[in-house]
Amino acid sequence: MAETNATHEPVRFETHPERYVHWRLEFPAENDGAVARLVMDVKEERGFRPGYPLKLNSYDIGVDIELADALQRIRFEHPKVRAVVVTSAKDRIFCSGANIYMLGSSTHAFKVNFCKFTNETRLYLEEMSAESGIPSLCALNGTASGGGYELAIACDDIVLADDGSSAVSFPEAPLLAVLPGTGGLTRLVDKRKIRRDLADAFSTVAEGVRGKRAVEWGLVDEAPPKAKFEEVTKRRTAAILEKSKRRPTQAIVLSPLEVKRSDKGAEYKYVSLALDAKTRVATLTVKAPNGKEPTTPEELAKMGSSAWAIQAFRELDDALLDLRFNQPNIGVVSLKTTGDAEKVLAVDAMLSKHKDDGLVRETILLMKRVLKRLDLTAKSFFALVEPRSCFVGTLLELALAADRVFMKDSDDDDVSVSTSPMNAGLFPMANGLSRLQTRFLREPERVSRALEQGAMTTKDAVKAGLVTFAPDDIDWDDEIRIAFEERAAMSPDAMTGMEASLRFAGPETMETKIFGRLSAWQNWIFQRPNAVGERGALTRYGKPERPDFNWSRT
Amino acid sequence: MAETNATHEPVRFETHPERYVHWRLEFPAENDGAVARLVMDVKEERGFRPGYPLKLNSYDIGVDIELADALQRIRFEHPKVRAVVVTSAKDRIFCSGANIYMLGSSTHAFKVNFCKFTNETRLYLEEMSAESGIPSLCALNGTASGGGYELAIACDDIVLADDGSSAVSFPEAPLLAVLPGTGGLTRLVDKRKIRRDLADAFSTVAEGVRGKRAVEWGLVDEAPPKAKFEEVTKRRTAAILEKSKRRPTQAIVLSPLEVKRSDKGAEYKYVSLALDAKTRVATLTVKAPNGKEPTTPEELAKMGSSAWAIQAFRELDDALLDLRFNQPNIGVVSLKTTGDAEKVLAVDAMLSKHKDDGLVRETILLMKRVLKRLDLTAKSFFALVEPRSCFVGTLLELALAADRVFMKDSDDDDVSVSTSPMNAGLFPMANGLSRLQTRFLREPERVSRALEQGAMTTKDAVKAGLVTFAPDDIDWDDEIRIAFEERAAMSPDAMTGMEASLRFAGPETMETKIFGRLSAWQNWIFQRPNAVGERGALTRYGKPERPDFNWSRT
Repeated sequence: MAETNATHEPVRFETHPERYVHWRLEFPAENDGAVARLVMDVKEERGFRPGYPLKLNSYDIGVDIELADALQRIRFEHPKVRAVVVTSAKDRIFCSGANIYMLGSSTHAFKVNFCKFTNETRLYLEEMSAESGIPSLCALNGTASGGGYELAIACDDIVLADDGSSAVSFPEAPLLAVLPGTGGLTRLVDKRKIRRDLADAFSTVAEGVRGKRAVEWGLVDEAPPKAKFEEVTKRRTAAILEKSKRRPTQAIVLSPLEVKRSDKGAEYKYVSLALDAKTRVATLTVKAPNGKEPTTPEELAKMGSSAWAIQAFRELDDALLDLRFNQPNIGVVSLKTTGDAEKVLAVDAMLSKHKDDGLVRETILLMKRVLKRLDLTAKSFFALVEPRSCFVGTLLELALAADRVFMKDSDDDDVSVSTSPMNAGLFPMANGLSRLQTRFLREPERVSRALEQGAMTTKDAVKAGLVTFAPDDIDWDDEIRIAFEERAAMSPDAMTGMEASLRFAGPETMETKIFGRLSAWQNWIFQRPNAVGERGALTRYGKPERPDFNWSRT
Repeated sequence: MAETNATHEPVRFETHPERYVHWRLEFPAENDGAVARLVMDVKEERGFRPGYPLKLNSYDIGVDIELADALQRIRFEHPKVRAVVVTSAKDRIFCSGANIYMLGSSTHAFKVNFCKFTNETRLYLEEMSAESGIPSLCALNGTASGGGYELAIACDDIVLADDGSSAVSFPEAPLLAVLPGTGGLTRLVDKRKIRRDLADAFSTVAEGVRGKRAVEWGLVDEAPPKAKFEEVTKRRTAAILEKSKRRPTQAIVLSPLEVKRSDKGAEYKYVSLALDAKTRVATLTVKAPNGKEPTTPEELAKMGSSAWAIQAFRELDDALLDLRFNQPNIGVVSLKTTGDAEKVLAVDAMLSKHKDDGLVRETILLMKRVLKRLDLTAKSFFALVEPRSCFVGTLLELALAADRVFMKDSDDDDVSVSTSPMNAGLFPMANGLSRLQTRFLREPERVSRALEQGAMTTKDAVKAGLVTFAPDDIDWDDEIRIAFEERAAMSPDAMTGMEASLRFAGPETMETKIFGRLSAWQNWIFQRPNAVGERGALTRYGKPERPDFNWSRT
């Protein structure tokens, strides 16, 4: 199959429930509107790219963008919601996973980025339960296969109709010679803690497992007969609702981002992305607030999504996704900040003071997710700390997330960085540690020292271990130029693998397993001839010829 | 470069210090012989395969087989040794890593298996320190690059000569567009806990880091000037010797294994490997002891390596390596045991009773390493528990290590399995848990129940959660045949990735990170055109043309 998507229109991530094509976000009156329903109803003919009908509630990036948007809006716009039910509007099918023809016709890079985004979205569903107290139930009114079942096991509770035909299944390995691409294998053994031999059997039986056996193996939580499906789903929904720990939250509306895009990049209000195709370097700049920012949660609620903490990070998220999906040839990103550091610290002071307020908490969690998106973006990030930059507190996290930090050692200008209370654990990485903790695994006492120290000059920051290289005025331009040139000249694949290995030291979590281990295996398989070769299983899916495997085991 | 090794002679893993070509294992008189010296002195012209001279103490599988053998012999044959110094006989070069031309001319499967074996050997060096109390010091009398530095960071302590030229380096990414293949990136950030930005800088500078900076960054522990190198090495050797916790151990000699090999497989005394090229299924059978086995540590010392616990597991190790390296097309392994279960339990009783004895402990650790080798072997393992099998205690671990366990539910014959005290934590997996603990993450109370239960019939074993499928007499033959046929028909790559993801639930360790995450990225990169394509960096290394990269980031 030809790899077509590289020549297509760029992928854009903004949407709105009114524009959803494939999902319905409903707020039924029962339970006082405390249970949102996310109903999957994929329109076959409205795939994100032409060439593959989205049959049987199969999905592509367009479907998943809507799901990600819905989760975000539930958190910010619908404070009454205290639990979510995910289900399907199709008869006898919940979801048949990522569309196979879409995968078969996509580039390797697109497949990898698509899986990463869908993985993030499923983790958001879990984070919404763990951090915001909004648990989810998956009501499988029909078969959930592949990514469909992976979506189900991202929920807290699964009900499967026992109707003699509805099954849960991972047909990827037996039918397509790839792995379930969205954390499925990891969640089987690490989240649902299913016995490895049963997980093995399940993952190799294309037709999957139904009814009682699915319950016995731990694949679903209950499998009532069709006639009792509604009743059981209601009972179990009431049970998760009972456990919901959502705190009172003031609603805000997430307004559309305003962005000017061109060949040269994108200009948002607080974020700017400048692309240099020739050097394969992008410059990503985040600006400090420049007007009045909220000083209380009430003011934040009033200002809504135009508050800097929300808007700047939503813009950053959009820019990062743009880099991932639409700028494949960019290898290195120069991370910059500019503006009034005091204004950033003032926002930080408000957020950290009111971190237990519902809306403030959601804001911090949003920032956390965006910073994680940065950690997981397969580009080299070099932070440049220069005069008039504002790598302080929340924005210092950008430098701590970078692969290297260059800080100018200037005689003429003040250059400084600073921590704030926001660096003390409010933005955990996938490994569960703060970026400071991860940085100083060898000398943990440096964490509290950095947190106490406040503003630091270049020399202080070097001493504190926050800076990789600190060229002086004379050397700065040359050293920076050479560093970017050298990095951009290296094999993109080697850099991706190296960064994935160096960025997450310390403890492992289900999340690091999903992105570190499972994704790497998936990526490996996604380029093996047995899957994607001319006679591979993914290529030949749906064709009369059977795949033709090279039997050599690696 | 043509991929040549598939057509070559098989790789054999047995050797002896008298036959070493590339290493010298010395026992200098100083320190009362308590410090063994492992001196690397690679013979350029004696590579394992023709076609690549082993310049600059670079290594191939032949070099590493000797190192693995030396470590094993130090533990069993040299009880006086309480610390090890690893160094080089070459002037100004310690070791330049895995030979690049060897890698460039090897099949993907060979590269992957080569890296896995070298990884295991480095972990054995660390296990020797942690579990047997024999720490190691790496005396870098010259440059250690790539796998050379990876060998160094597997040691507890590193001294680097500060002579203006000797450096430590990871040139893999910048020069070859691959990753350091032997755990290097993981050990940088997770063992030596080097700051990620410094690790990033280090791993992209081909010429590496020398002297003081290497100490400052945490890459080595001390970097004395050349003139003081010997003195400092002695001082630091004395320091690790001081900390050695090796307990008194009786020496035994590891005798050569006797094995009859043919196209159809290999027959050892206690292990038999039968190959069926047509079905791509191998049958690996381990026999119970059939004579008198030691009942005390003294008797074990007298019987030496012909004791079942040692001999059967050395044979199993050899058979597993044979499967990995020489039988690439075997996809599924039928794991069987046969013989007198009581004799296995008697050995287990002796071992567990005397587990604190030095030699018994080494024996248990050997068994542990072999069982881990099984966990990490990229073949599907199905254990078949039939009449007259003896999956009890130590041999029950084989079933617990298997991807599935089939147990015959027979009316006519007795079929049983049993735990022994050996299943209670003496054979931890890479994740640090016992196989029973890993199996029952969901219901941890089952672990102690299984340990207390003793012999179990098929029905008991099914109830206890030890069995995947239990066909009866009538169905057994068909079900087994179909299970093997179906498994053998699946994509070998998908099975490898799936098994790697399902086998190690639960906590992550440096070891699971190395085999799970780092190896997967390495494998991915090992087939990217930027590395191994016609114009890739690995292919073009040493040629006049520069590599030609596809700049798309994945």
